[in-house]
Amino acid sequence: MSKDLHVRSTDKFSFGLWTVGNRGRDPFGEAVRPKIEVSDMLRGLADIGVYGVSFHDDDLMTFGASEPQRRAELDAFKKDLEATGLKCTMATTNLFYHPVFKDGAFTSNDPQVRKYAIQKVMRNLDVAAELGAPVYVFWGGREGVESPTAKDTRDALSRYAEALDFLAGYVKDKGYDIKFALEPKPNEPRGDIYLPTVGHALAFIETLQHSEMVGVNPEVAHETMSGLSFYQGVAQAIWQGKLFHIDLNDQRIGRFDQDFRFGSEGIKDHFFLVRLLENSGYEGVKHFDAHAYRTEDVEGVWDFARGCIRNYLAFAEKAREFDADPRVAEAMAYTGVAELAVPTVGPYTPEAAAGLMAETFDVDTLAKRGFGIEKLDQLAVDHILGIA
Amino acid sequence: MSKDLHVRSTDKFSFGLWTVGNRGRDPFGEAVRPKIEVSDMLRGLADIGVYGVSFHDDDLMTFGASEPQRRAELDAFKKDLEATGLKCTMATTNLFYHPVFKDGAFTSNDPQVRKYAIQKVMRNLDVAAELGAPVYVFWGGREGVESPTAKDTRDALSRYAEALDFLAGYVKDKGYDIKFALEPKPNEPRGDIYLPTVGHALAFIETLQHSEMVGVNPEVAHETMSGLSFYQGVAQAIWQGKLFHIDLNDQRIGRFDQDFRFGSEGIKDHFFLVRLLENSGYEGVKHFDAHAYRTEDVEGVWDFARGCIRNYLAFAEKAREFDADPRVAEAMAYTGVAELAVPTVGPYTPEAAAGLMAETFDVDTLAKRGFGIEKLDQLAVDHILGIA
Amino acid sequence: MSKDLHVRSTDKFSFGLWTVGNRGRDPFGEAVRPKIEVSDMLRGLADIGVYGVSFHDDDLMTFGASEPQRRAELDAFKKDLEATGLKCTMATTNLFYHPVFKDGAFTSNDPQVRKYAIQKVMRNLDVAAELGAPVYVFWGGREGVESPTAKDTRDALSRYAEALDFLAGYVKDKGYDIKFALEPKPNEPRGDIYLPTVGHALAFIETLQHSEMVGVNPEVAHETMSGLSFYQGVAQAIWQGKLFHIDLNDQRIGRFDQDFRFGSEGIKDHFFLVRLLENSGYEGVKHFDAHAYRTEDVEGVWDFARGCIRNYLAFAEKAREFDADPRVAEAMAYTGVAELAVPTVGPYTPEAAAGLMAETFDVDTLAKRGFGIEKLDQLAVDHILGIA
Amino acid sequence: MSKDLHVRSTDKFSFGLWTVGNRGRDPFGEAVRPKIEVSDMLRGLADIGVYGVSFHDDDLMTFGASEPQRRAELDAFKKDLEATGLKCTMATTNLFYHPVFKDGAFTSNDPQVRKYAIQKVMRNLDVAAELGAPVYVFWGGREGVESPTAKDTRDALSRYAEALDFLAGYVKDKGYDIKFALEPKPNEPRGDIYLPTVGHALAFIETLQHSEMVGVNPEVAHETMSGLSFYQGVAQAIWQGKLFHIDLNDQRIGRFDQDFRFGSEGIKDHFFLVRLLENSGYEGVKHFDAHAYRTEDVEGVWDFARGCIRNYLAFAEKAREFDADPRVAEAMAYTGVAELAVPTVGPYTPEAAAGLMAETFDVDTLAKRGFGIEKLDQLAVDHILGIA
Repeated sequence: MSKDLHVRSTDKFSFGLWTVGNRGRDPFGEAVRPKIEVSDMLRGLADIGVYGVSFHDDDLMTFGASEPQRRAELDAFKKDLEATGLKCTMATTNLFYHPVFKDGAFTSNDPQVRKYAIQKVMRNLDVAAELGAPVYVFWGGREGVESPTAKDTRDALSRYAEALDFLAGYVKDKGYDIKFALEPKPNEPRGDIYLPTVGHALAFIETLQHSEMVGVNPEVAHETMSGLSFYQGVAQAIWQGKLFHIDLNDQRIGRFDQDFRFGSEGIKDHFFLVRLLENSGYEGVKHFDAHAYRTEDVEGVWDFARGCIRNYLAFAEKAREFDADPRVAEAMAYTGVAELAVPTVGPYTPEAAAGLMAETFDVDTLAKRGFGIEKLDQLAVDHILGIA
Repeated sequence: MSKDLHVRSTDKFSFGLWTVGNRGRDPFGEAVRPKIEVSDMLRGLADIGVYGVSFHDDDLMTFGASEPQRRAELDAFKKDLEATGLKCTMATTNLFYHPVFKDGAFTSNDPQVRKYAIQKVMRNLDVAAELGAPVYVFWGGREGVESPTAKDTRDALSRYAEALDFLAGYVKDKGYDIKFALEPKPNEPRGDIYLPTVGHALAFIETLQHSEMVGVNPEVAHETMSGLSFYQGVAQAIWQGKLFHIDLNDQRIGRFDQDFRFGSEGIKDHFFLVRLLENSGYEGVKHFDAHAYRTEDVEGVWDFARGCIRNYLAFAEKAREFDADPRVAEAMAYTGVAELAVPTVGPYTPEAAAGLMAETFDVDTLAKRGFGIEKLDQLAVDHILGIA
Repeated sequence: MSKDLHVRSTDKFSFGLWTVGNRGRDPFGEAVRPKIEVSDMLRGLADIGVYGVSFHDDDLMTFGASEPQRRAELDAFKKDLEATGLKCTMATTNLFYHPVFKDGAFTSNDPQVRKYAIQKVMRNLDVAAELGAPVYVFWGGREGVESPTAKDTRDALSRYAEALDFLAGYVKDKGYDIKFALEPKPNEPRGDIYLPTVGHALAFIETLQHSEMVGVNPEVAHETMSGLSFYQGVAQAIWQGKLFHIDLNDQRIGRFDQDFRFGSEGIKDHFFLVRLLENSGYEGVKHFDAHAYRTEDVEGVWDFARGCIRNYLAFAEKAREFDADPRVAEAMAYTGVAELAVPTVGPYTPEAAAGLMAETFDVDTLAKRGFGIEKLDQLAVDHILGIA
Repeated sequence: MSKDLHVRSTDKFSFGLWTVGNRGRDPFGEAVRPKIEVSDMLRGLADIGVYGVSFHDDDLMTFGASEPQRRAELDAFKKDLEATGLKCTMATTNLFYHPVFKDGAFTSNDPQVRKYAIQKVMRNLDVAAELGAPVYVFWGGREGVESPTAKDTRDALSRYAEALDFLAGYVKDKGYDIKFALEPKPNEPRGDIYLPTVGHALAFIETLQHSEMVGVNPEVAHETMSGLSFYQGVAQAIWQGKLFHIDLNDQRIGRFDQDFRFGSEGIKDHFFLVRLLENSGYEGVKHFDAHAYRTEDVEGVWDFARGCIRNYLAFAEKAREFDADPRVAEAMAYTGVAELAVPTVGPYTPEAAAGLMAETFDVDTLAKRGFGIEKLDQLAVDHILGIA
C-alpha cells in the first residue's frame, strides 16, 4: 500500500504556469497536448496542495495585446488566485521567445532591443507588485553567443549589470517589496550563456549597485547540465546568504535541458538537497520548474505534478529520519563532521602566527586516521532506499 | 618551410617545475621518464625563451627534510635562477600528495591537519617572498568530498575562508609583495571540489577579509572539464579585475584532467583566449601547466614545451592580423559589436524610467535584423586556418 | 586577401532541404526567418557548387495532403532538380515531428503507430527510388525512452530490427537500388535513444536479415554530444565497411544538439576527419546537416552554407599538404605509424604459439623508446594553422 | 533497525583482488593504505558472502619474477582459494602498468611490444585455465591515442583483432573452457581508447574469427563516463547474446574514472540494471570492480565491500517487489509495455507489403493516446525509495 505523504503548511510548493501548461513542443516535434486554461491549472494545483504559482508576463497576458485585454486577463487571473487561495510566489519576464530577442535582451547588440527589454521588465514589475510576488526572477536565456567574436564579454556584462541596476532602482523608487533572483544556465538556447553557473552569478551580483536585493535562483537542470554538483552550488549560495528562490526539476548530466519530474533522476543528490533546504532555514518557496514527459496526455501532467511533490516530501521525511538515527550521529562523530565547524586558527595575529609556526605535527600519524565515510555514506543510501 | 615565431620580451612565458618535470605516472601506470634535475630544467627552459618558473614547495625542497637540507636545495635553486636569468613567477603549496591531506587541507575534518596545512603554506610564503614570486597560487585539490554527508559545505567554506584570511594577514604583516590567486577545479581527485569554477571562486573571494589581494588563476583544463567556456570565464574574471594568473594547457570536455600541450585540442577557443589576453592589458605571466604525453621520452618533453609556446605565439599573431583586417572591421560593424559598448539607459532616475516607459518599439521590425555572425565567425576561422 | 578554395567535381557536397530551410525555431523561441521556397534553395545551393540535396518526405510533400497535391509537389521538385542539375543524394522519413510518434515510430508501444511508421517509409522509398536517391537514412529520433520501465529494450530492438528487415525486403522486392544508413544519436529529443552511437548501430546491423545493405550515417553533432571521438567512430565504420553516408556539422561536447556550421568548433578533429575521408576511398556524398545561427537572416544562411564548404575544402587541402610534407613523413617513421600495418604474429598455429612462447623480451629496454608524438602532433597543428 | 539482506547462493558476487586491495594512490597523491595480503583479502571476502575473486596476472605473481617464485605465489593462492571455498571467477592481464605498454599493448606501434603483450596473455591464460576461470577479460586501457595521427585506426583495429584471433586460437587449441569478454572504455588513461563503448565492442566482435567465444564485460563507470545509459548498453548486449561478464561500481557522468561503491551514485539506473540482470537469465557473476574512497583505512575497505553487496541485494529485492505489485502491472498495461513484444508486421512478403500499403490510419486519433509513463515511472521511484 502506498505510503501517504502529506503536504505541510510550511512546504510552500509552487509551480510555474508554463510547467503544467507545457504542451510538449520540442526541437523535433510539435505540441502534443491541448492548452489547459489558467483557471483549470490553478484549480488543479490547489487540489494537490500547492501553495502558489509563478508566471512569465506572456503566460498571463497575450504578447502585444491591447492594454484593456491585458488588464482583463490579469484581473481574471487575480480572481482565480483568490478563488483557489493560491499565492503569486514569483514573476519573471519572457525575454527569449520572440525573434526580437534572438541576439539577447539586456545584451543584444541592438540598443533598441536592450531598451525594449528593460521596458518589458518594468511593465511586468508593476504586475508583480500588484500580485504581491516577493521575488522576480531573471533568466537570461538569450544573453550569450555562439561565436566569441560577436560580443565583447566585458561589454555584455556591463550592459547586463546596467539593466539590473536600472531595474533595481525602479523597484526601490516605486517602493515595491520585491527581490531579484538571477537564474544561471550554461548553454541552450545560446551556445554559451553569460552567468553560466551559480558561482558566476554570485560573483556578478557583487558588482551590482543594489547587490543586497539580488540573489540567485539555482535550477537543478541548469547546474546539472554542466556536471556540477547542484547540492554544492546551492550550499555555497546559502553560505553567501543569496538563496532567494530555487527551481526544482531533474536532469542527466551533459544533456539538453530536460526539466524532468523532481526526483526522477538524481535521487541521492536530491536527498541531500532537500535535507539542506530543510535544515538551513531557507524560507522561500520550493518551486517546480519542470514538465511532464512528451508521451503524456493531460492526466499524465497531473501525475507528473503529484510526483514532484511526493518526491520532495519523501526526501524531507527521510532527511528527518537520517538526522534522528543514532547510528548516523555516531558515524558522523567518527568522520569528524562537527569538528569542521570549529575554527582552525581564528583571526590572524602575529602571536597566533608565531604560535602556529612553532608547532610540530606528526604527519605520518595524522595520515593514518580513517574517516569512516564509506560507512556514513552507506547509512545515507540505506535511508534513501528505506532499508535503514 | 616552418614559419618562424619569435618570443617577444613582453610574452613572459612561464612553466611549473612539475610540468617539464612530469614523469608520466598516471592512475594505471608508473613513471616512464627519468627525473630531470632542476638545474637541467631551468637551462632547457631558458634555451627556448621562457621568462620564468613556478614551483610547489615539495618540487624544490624535499618533503620532511631537515632545515639545512631544505636551505641547501633552495640556495641551489637560487643559483640556477641567477645563472639562467629566469624569474620565479609564482609559488604554491603541495597540499595534496601526502596521505595526511586525503580528507582535505584547509577543510580537513581533522583540525590538526588544517593547522599543519596553514603552517606549510606560511613556510613556503617565506620562500616565495625570498624568491620574489609576485603571485601565490592556491589549488585546493583535496578540499572536497565524495559524499555530501562527510562535510557541511558551509563549514568547509568557512574554514577555507578562515585559512585564506589568516594567510593574507601573514603576508601583510610580513610586508611581502605577494598576491593570492585561487585555482578552481570541479572534480578530480575529489568527487566534488569546493570552488569548482572561476565563478564560484570569484564569488567566494568577495567574502574574504582581504579580498583586494585575492584573485583567480583559471586553468584551461579545469574549466573545460565541466564543459564551461574557458574564454567566457576568463573574460568575466578580467571584467571583475581578478585575473591574477593563468594556467594554459589543453583538455577535452568531460574527461579526466589531461593537461595537454596548449593549442593541441581547443584551437578556436584558444585563438579567442589569446586575443583576449593580448588586448585586455593583462600583465601577468602566461603560465603553462601541462605535460608531455606519456608516450614521450625526454626529447619529447622539450618538443612539448616548444609546442606550447609556438601555439601561443601563433594565436597572438593571428589575433593581431584578425584585428587589423578591414573585412573583419566591416563585419564587426554589421554585427554591432561596438554598439554593445554604449550604455543602454544609463543610471536609474525617475525621469529616465518615465522616458523609457513612454517609448514605443516596433518589435517586428527590430526582429528582422540579421546580425551577420556566420560571416564574422567564418572570418575568424579563416584567420585561424591561415586562409584569410 | 582571402584564399580561394574551389569545389572539385569529386567533392560531391550535399545539403538537406531542412538545413538551409531551417527557420530558427528552438525550444525557447519561435521561427526567426521566413520560409525559403524549395526552388530558391536549389538555385542557391547550385550557385555555391553543391552536388545534390536530400529530403524528408514532409520537407517536400505536405504531410497529410491528397495524392494529387503530393504528386504535384514532387513533380515541381523534379523539375527544379533538372533545372539546377542537382542530384537527389539521400532520402529519409520524418518519423518524429507529428505527435503520433511521441512514443516512438518502429518502437512505439502502440502497434498501430508502428505499422503506420513502416507504411510511411514504404511510401517514401517509392519516392526515393523515383528520384534516384542511392541512400535512405533512418534516424530514429523518437525510438527511445525517458524511463527505462516504459519499454523492454530487448523488445524495442526486436521491433526495430523487424521494421528494418521488412523495409529492406520491400526495397529488394521492388528492385530499388537503395542502401540503408542508420544514424545514431545518444539522446534528444528522447531521454535515451536506442542505437546511441556508431558502435551500437554497427553492432545492431549485424543482427539484421539483409545486413549487407545496411550501414551507418554518423553525424558529427550526435557522436560529439556524448564526448566520443567522431573521428574514431567514423574510422571504425570505415574499417567495418559500413560508412554509407556522413552528416557533417559541428558541436560542443555535452550540449544540446547544435548542428553548427562544419568547421566552426572542432577544428583539429575535423582536419583528421577530412583527411580520413579523402584518403580512405569513401565515395559517398559529404552531406551537411547543419543550420545557420538563429541570429541570422536569409543572407546569413548562405554565409553559413558557404562556410561549411569552405572549411571542408580547407581541411582537404591541408591534409594533402600534411601528407606531402617530408618532415611529417620523417616524424611518422619515428613514431612507427607504418609499423602498425604489419601483422604481429599472423594467424594462429600451434607452431606460431610455441615460437612466441619461447621468445624473451627485454622489457625495460623496449620501454625506453620515445614515440615522438608531441612533435608529430605539433606538425599537424602547424598545418592546421597554416604555419607549417 | 537496519534491514537484513542476505546473500543468496545464486548471487555469485565476485571482487577483483585489486579492488579491496586498492591502496588509494591517485594522480595527485600516493598510497594511503597498507598492502593487504592476498590471503587476508580472500578470508575477508569469504566472510561477507562473496562467491569468488578475479585477478590480473601481476596481482598474483610478481611481475618479472622467476618461474619458481611465480609458481610458489600461484600455489599459495590456490591453497587460499581452497581454504576459503572461493572460486576464481575471472582472469585478466595487466597490459597497462609497465612503461613498455605506454603506446599500447596489442596496438603498440612497436611490434616487439605487441608480441610481448600476446605472450603475456598466453602465459596467464594457462594460469586462468589451471584456476578454472571461465571468463578472461580484455581491457585495452592503453590501446588508443592522444593524437589521431599517431596511429591509423584501421591498422590498430586490425592488430587488435589479430591478437584476439590468435589468443582465441590458443584457447581452442589448448582445449581451455574459457570465454573472452572485452571491456570497453572511452578514455583514461589514453586520450581516446579503441572500442570506447559496449556498442563499439559488440560491433568489433562480429569481425573476429571466433566471435562465438567473445562477448563483452560492460562496466558501470566506463559507460557512464561518456554519459551513455549503462542500462541500455547492457540491455543491448543481452539482446545480442553477448553479456559474458559485468563490472559493477559507480560513477558520475563526465568525470574521471571513479570506481565508487556500487549503488552510491546512480540509484535509479542501478535499480533497473539489477532488475534486468535478475530477470534476463544472466548466469555470470556479479563482479564488483570498485574501490573504497581514499579517505578510508582498512576498516573502511570492508565497509565499502559490504556496501556494494548490500545495495545489489536491496535493488534485487525491490525489483521483485516492483514486478509483483499489481499497481505496476496495471500501469504497465496502460503504458503498453507488453504490446511491444508483439511483432508489428512479421517477415516481409509482397502480400504483407501490399496489405500494409492498403491500410489507412487515423493519425490524429492515434496521437491522442497518453502513455501514462509519469505514473509508471513514479511507481518505480516509490519502490526504490521504499514508499510504494
